[in-house]
Amino acid sequence: MTTVLVVHDVVLWRKALRCLLHHAGDSLNVLSCGREELRRAACDERPEVYVLDLDCPGSHSLLEELGTVRRPGPDGGHLVVLGRGDRPGALRTAAVAGARGYVDKYGGTDDLPAVVRKVADGGRYIDESLAFGLLQANEIPLSGRELGVLSLAAQGDSVACIARRLNLTNGTVRNYLAAAVRKSGGRNRSHAIRLAHEAGWI
Amino acid sequence: MTTVLVVHDVVLWRKALRCLLHHAGDSLNVLSCGREELRRAACDERPEVYVLDLDCPGSHSLLEELGTVRRPGPDGGHLVVLGRGDRPGALRTAAVAGARGYVDKYGGTDDLPAVVRKVADGGRYIDESLAFGLLQANEIPLSGRELGVLSLAAQGDSVACIARRLNLTNGTVRNYLAAAVRKSGGRNRSHAIRLAHEAGWI
Repeated sequence: MTTVLVVHDVVLWRKALRCLLHHAGDSLNVLSCGREELRRAACDERPEVYVLDLDCPGSHSLLEELGTVRRPGPDGGHLVVLGRGDRPGALRTAAVAGARGYVDKYGGTDDLPAVVRKVADGGRYIDESLAFGLLQANEIPLSGRELGVLSLAAQGDSVACIARRLNLTNGTVRNYLAAAVRKSGGRNRSHAIRLAHEAGWI
Repeated sequence: MTTVLVVHDVVLWRKALRCLLHHAGDSLNVLSCGREELRRAACDERPEVYVLDLDCPGSHSLLEELGTVRRPGPDGGHLVVLGRGDRPGALRTAAVAGARGYVDKYGGTDDLPAVVRKVADGGRYIDESLAFGLLQANEIPLSGRELGVLSLAAQGDSVACIARRLNLTNGTVRNYLAAAVRKSGGRNRSHAIRLAHEAGWI
């Protein structure tokens, strides 16, 4: 029996994904939670596989949070992400976070439960469309931290708020933002956010 | 046996919603399609209930399209929408389109299949959180057409492209856009789009 934890902001998608995984056979014990409950659920349930949607707002920082939450070592739980080919930035952050399964929400594999089982058994899976997205990700000039900080700024978080969430000082956050603006070729912060959105980096 | 058609851009959510509705009992025959197949599916399958996510890009124009696709009369198929309280504009467009079921994706009813069955039987359902959103919708200064045109412009569609999609002349689209900019208090088109996004109108 493999314990799977579905992490999603939208309650309806949590329920629907749980249904999809649950009805695929007896071998998956499927739980779900929102971002706020992630730490507690990871601690209590010790899932073997996490399933995470890269389209959730703030998925960059959610992936970072998952990194601090998963138990260390190979048994700390594997990661399957649900993504799309036109958002290479999120795919790269997932790769850095050690994701082993990449499923295209827009028409990838027909069998998500099989991917979850494969990853639980130590295997890997990637939909072809996302593989191309990951190739593009190599061309993104911003570092993972710069993408993470910029994506939080894009949600309207203030410098102080971003600093608190990521355990950084205000000055460090300002430095990351300045680097993100410079490297993206933006005129200012909001221009950089627009360019990064258009390119699928955040 | 009630035939239900789930309309969604994201293939994974189509599958997951179909699973959720299918496993709730024997009384629902659940089909799904993307926007492009809507007309053919509506014609071939004659669904009694349509389920539509208001967060799909271009949901304003999708609701208009659904209006032209549904057969006339009370047996033309009822509409259940999946929405959120902070997007009153989409809720208003759904109300204008005659939606009879309103389910909050962020934690509304636990029983979507029951809502679908109720609406199929001629009933109505609304989650409390969405009812408040609908109240706010009355305060939106833009007309439904202006919202629809502005939401297509927000996706990056050109005036000529919007005109083709909505069967309007280029001049009419420009007039709607000008009215949308004026009524929203925006300085120009992109400022109006930003204001409309922030207010949850589109």
